[in-house]
Amino acid sequence: MGIIGASGYGGGELIRLLKAHPGVELVGFSSRKHEGKPLSSAWPQLWDKGLFATLEEVLEQADVVFLALPNGLAMELTPRALEEGKRVIDLSGDFRLPPEVYESWYGIPHKSPGLYREAVYGLPELHRKELGGARLVANPGCYVTATTLALAPLAAEGVLRGAFVVGLSGVSGAGREGEGTFFAEVNENLKPYKVGGTHRHIPEMERNLGRLLAQGRPVRTHGPLGEVRLSFVPHLVPMTRGILVTVEAEVEGNWSQKALDELYQDFYAQEPFVRITEALPETKGTYASNRVDVKPLYEARTGRVMVFAALDNLVKGMAGQAVQNLNLMLGLPEETALPKEGLWP
Amino acid sequence: MGIIGASGYGGGELIRLLKAHPGVELVGFSSRKHEGKPLSSAWPQLWDKGLFATLEEVLEQADVVFLALPNGLAMELTPRALEEGKRVIDLSGDFRLPPEVYESWYGIPHKSPGLYREAVYGLPELHRKELGGARLVANPGCYVTATTLALAPLAAEGVLRGAFVVGLSGVSGAGREGEGTFFAEVNENLKPYKVGGTHRHIPEMERNLGRLLAQGRPVRTHGPLGEVRLSFVPHLVPMTRGILVTVEAEVEGNWSQKALDELYQDFYAQEPFVRITEALPETKGTYASNRVDVKPLYEARTGRVMVFAALDNLVKGMAGQAVQNLNLMLGLPEETALPKEGLWP
Amino acid sequence: MGIIGASGYGGGELIRLLKAHPGVELVGFSSRKHEGKPLSSAWPQLWDKGLFATLEEVLEQADVVFLALPNGLAMELTPRALEEGKRVIDLSGDFRLPPEVYESWYGIPHKSPGLYREAVYGLPELHRKELGGARLVANPGCYVTATTLALAPLAAEGVLRGAFVVGLSGVSGAGREGEGTFFAEVNENLKPYKVGGTHRHIPEMERNLGRLLAQGRPVRTHGPLGEVRLSFVPHLVPMTRGILVTVEAEVEGNWSQKALDELYQDFYAQEPFVRITEALPETKGTYASNRVDVKPLYEARTGRVMVFAALDNLVKGMAGQAVQNLNLMLGLPEETALPKEGLWP
Amino acid sequence: MGIIGASGYGGGELIRLLKAHPGVELVGFSSRKHEGKPLSSAWPQLWDKGLFATLEEVLEQADVVFLALPNGLAMELTPRALEEGKRVIDLSGDFRLPPEVYESWYGIPHKSPGLYREAVYGLPELHRKELGGARLVANPGCYVTATTLALAPLAAEGVLRGAFVVGLSGVSGAGREGEGTFFAEVNENLKPYKVGGTHRHIPEMERNLGRLLAQGRPVRTHGPLGEVRLSFVPHLVPMTRGILVTVEAEVEGNWSQKALDELYQDFYAQEPFVRITEALPETKGTYASNRVDVKPLYEARTGRVMVFAALDNLVKGMAGQAVQNLNLMLGLPEETALPKEGLWP
Repeated sequence: MGIIGASGYGGGELIRLLKAHPGVELVGFSSRKHEGKPLSSAWPQLWDKGLFATLEEVLEQADVVFLALPNGLAMELTPRALEEGKRVIDLSGDFRLPPEVYESWYGIPHKSPGLYREAVYGLPELHRKELGGARLVANPGCYVTATTLALAPLAAEGVLRGAFVVGLSGVSGAGREGEGTFFAEVNENLKPYKVGGTHRHIPEMERNLGRLLAQGRPVRTHGPLGEVRLSFVPHLVPMTRGILVTVEAEVEGNWSQKALDELYQDFYAQEPFVRITEALPETKGTYASNRVDVKPLYEARTGRVMVFAALDNLVKGMAGQAVQNLNLMLGLPEETALPKEGLWP
Repeated sequence: MGIIGASGYGGGELIRLLKAHPGVELVGFSSRKHEGKPLSSAWPQLWDKGLFATLEEVLEQADVVFLALPNGLAMELTPRALEEGKRVIDLSGDFRLPPEVYESWYGIPHKSPGLYREAVYGLPELHRKELGGARLVANPGCYVTATTLALAPLAAEGVLRGAFVVGLSGVSGAGREGEGTFFAEVNENLKPYKVGGTHRHIPEMERNLGRLLAQGRPVRTHGPLGEVRLSFVPHLVPMTRGILVTVEAEVEGNWSQKALDELYQDFYAQEPFVRITEALPETKGTYASNRVDVKPLYEARTGRVMVFAALDNLVKGMAGQAVQNLNLMLGLPEETALPKEGLWP
Repeated sequence: MGIIGASGYGGGELIRLLKAHPGVELVGFSSRKHEGKPLSSAWPQLWDKGLFATLEEVLEQADVVFLALPNGLAMELTPRALEEGKRVIDLSGDFRLPPEVYESWYGIPHKSPGLYREAVYGLPELHRKELGGARLVANPGCYVTATTLALAPLAAEGVLRGAFVVGLSGVSGAGREGEGTFFAEVNENLKPYKVGGTHRHIPEMERNLGRLLAQGRPVRTHGPLGEVRLSFVPHLVPMTRGILVTVEAEVEGNWSQKALDELYQDFYAQEPFVRITEALPETKGTYASNRVDVKPLYEARTGRVMVFAALDNLVKGMAGQAVQNLNLMLGLPEETALPKEGLWP
Repeated sequence: MGIIGASGYGGGELIRLLKAHPGVELVGFSSRKHEGKPLSSAWPQLWDKGLFATLEEVLEQADVVFLALPNGLAMELTPRALEEGKRVIDLSGDFRLPPEVYESWYGIPHKSPGLYREAVYGLPELHRKELGGARLVANPGCYVTATTLALAPLAAEGVLRGAFVVGLSGVSGAGREGEGTFFAEVNENLKPYKVGGTHRHIPEMERNLGRLLAQGRPVRTHGPLGEVRLSFVPHLVPMTRGILVTVEAEVEGNWSQKALDELYQDFYAQEPFVRITEALPETKGTYASNRVDVKPLYEARTGRVMVFAALDNLVKGMAGQAVQNLNLMLGLPEETALPKEGLWP
């Protein structure tokens, strides 16, 4: 294994998880900023004498490459990696959307539009089958994973029409040294941001749910698409890790708590990392684990259907999911090196 | 002035605010737990040699009494205070709802049902006129104040039908030593609670907005009532002070950002403590101030109308509002001793 | 009054405090970054329609100017301001040390060395007398204020030889967008920094205490100096405001708790903002107030003398102290516009 | 393995660590409060259908028993467990001190004084040899582990005379629902507590270092004792996990940074969980790991010797250390199931 972009939070978590992975070897990791320096120059928590390699070295030595880079770089690097016979797991948004959709939401031209049809969408709960043979995986992020898994059973059932999605995220979701994330400005503060239909993850959520609506499960990345229209209202919460989505679902038909519980229990019965909770999910319950806790709720008083879903944005919402995809790609047991138990307190 | 229940957060804030109030004198404060002890036994932040008095002493000496007590006690004390010619500002829920509604949501019998018709609802932005002559004021709390002010313009306009209200609250809203609020369980955690139409403040929000729907503004506490049906979904956020409500409003008619802005600007044009912000409200912007920051938003992509409102739950959501009501009751300038500027960072 | 550098934390606090000051008028505030923009572009918590002015405009309109600038700029601006007949309160380190000492610890050449002898050191508890007539005040910062006041009674008594000072500071002490203060890196983290005798505030602490040792109280800024040798070990604590110093004092003679209590009570008996606490000081007890809480402790088991001191680094450790100095310079009551009561919780 | 007292933080961490341990099986865990209830009633982070057993069941089924109980209970249970042929790892203070010392510092009579001479002190870095055959291990806590490891090289070298130890601890050190640890009282607050030579862990620190002084390393629990006199000044820091000790050591002889570095590097060269860092230790660097980061520092300006040590109080300071002791007792590789890599951010 190799990691390109190993000094950001995604890269750091990948190092931590892969070092404890019995079935693979981490042969190199690179960071433009820390090239040639010891791991400790970027990471106080990792005890290793290794040095950051160059991108070239990582590409040469590894057979599977994780790209943990800002949007726009993976689409430059991936063609070359694939040509050299490597398999790629990309943590950015570059291969998650059709190039034309990508360009309109991300505002940058796509440099490898042809590769989109090659990419498998890396959400194991929906695309497990496709992931086995994948050469290129587009690993989804935290908000999209939580929202998709929160609504997937209703979409696959064919009753989902739209949703009002309130996203609540810890600060690490903005990346290391993320804009506007200074402690004194964030602590004892809570704020919405990028509201009004402007967040880039909206088309990805709508497409994930639209595919389920059109195809049921299992889902093919490039299969047909139904229409689900979401409002997504993200907020920044004064904590480091964890996201929670609180969703009001617009659904057809008459529901009850019992019917919702059965639908969700059945849909996720075989999933190793999705738990339908009795209590309401809380982010700390998933801390440092690869689990998603989900709870559907029928409010008799108003007839509304709500869903709550919590996960650790750096594990199931990022690096853990990438390792889960790796396990599936390599035919290893899916749960290898991925904790189901969280850290408390 | 006197404060009964001065060792809780509401009482502590009242002491702080009243000590800086040039127009009134704080003659006594009581706490069953700290009776006879110095103020410093309960409050490290207050520099005062005063002792906690008995309830009797406070009732005797003060002409206006603030009751900062758990629900159920104010309805025992108030009849006596009024008989002795005192005026009462009650921070609990005891006089905010008709006795029969109170009993069904709070699960305790009401001991002074007759006084409800005497009580004026203490939300100055809607009831300013009534408050001048009030003997008994039912001071509303943080969630209700934020939600009511977020939706009041739409209700008064007659177009509000319902709402999905996501409440996000700091921990101090649960009171001093509130259940489940230990640091190690709350920090780096985020969770919904009391969802599914069970939160006691729902009927109060619905009645406030229903009165506006039926009466327009100004609102009479005991006037006619229209119907507004809310879902209220509160969450606990790892911070001490501050609440934010993120509201999806169900409204009639076609709206635009411009129309919403005008409606809100007009409605609150004369208000000393309500600011319609350009940027999205954040809780820290109102920290330690008596301000509410409100922002309506029209989402063109989905046609949804949203409103965001932030305030400090212990000031405008509690003790500051009580002092604002005091100023109105006594005919003092409404802004006296109430900061409009927040503390940052 | 005018403020130059009004978009940093010191400037923001000065605006908040001066707006509530009945005896002065804030006629202008400038920020290079926000010039011509509304106050809200920098400060979500301030409700004001005012615009950031240019430095020239502030210098022209104000008779007293607060300089809230990074080190090195005040020594450029001050000569001009004084020539134009303004009085200056400088919040930076530029006039706190003799030019040659400044140059060796700050590593930059001093541009107005002659003005040092004009500057009065702005610690009211020691220099009250001098401050009345001052044209130029060098306002000390948080660590120095806390450490000096923690040890002043022992120094003035002539028994202090040295100290091991552990400084514990919230993040706002590093300034707005301070290096290394991103939330995800700071929260759930605690670390020492700049240890080993390298922190710039060491010579200032040693000189303050050395002057007391040589002169007793009251102290003259430019009077004789005794020798006190400190180790200063600062730490970054995951909170926004507040500093605590925990000090082990090397003292001559035999001490007891009683003797220490009496010495400290007597020394600070007339001080409006210093409280000798019975309980151990905690930073939250001074939050948003101009108070310092101090507690000396004799440990019988080892014979050691310790002192604890807590204050709000942005108020008594910065802007509040500057306003206290202003009040003294103008002959106004010293406590004007300065809260003695903290914010809790 | 069995855990008695599995609903506190020590117990929860033990469950998490032992579930990932390939060499042992967790056969039962008990909690008086949660008896017969599912694990999820106490722990939102653990995904397991198991039920809390009774103490009897755990004692019967397990061959090694972890006691994660409040002080005073282990000394009641241990005799019985040993009689039944179990081996015991006790996380409380009951067997860490000679009964007469225990009684004077803990204020309760010791019920199994005879067992003290049987107990091995469970600090692997000093007592590794003894731990192999131990039937009863007294597992030390966070402050003692950090302070002892910070000063051990100086003590073993024979030069340590005393120390001024500033302890800085996250809130979880006070236990689940620890007194005075409510979020709103702790967040944005920092305070010393139990100062003045009153903290129970002082005699344990002094004895650990005294043994090293008298015996060098390896240390025998019941061997001779030299004298080291400490001042210990603990503080509560607004974070959940992590402790840092900042120590001023009183040492004989002349030192330099080079000499200190060599002494510490040599002393800990073979240790799997102690790292002598180049940078200053920070608590987050050890988060969720079993590592201790240590840094000695010679301050040329004053001639003082300081040491900084950081660890995770619930892992190396509690449950991780207990698992390390287990591994040694059972002759398993010492590092099994114990992460050396921390969680960041």
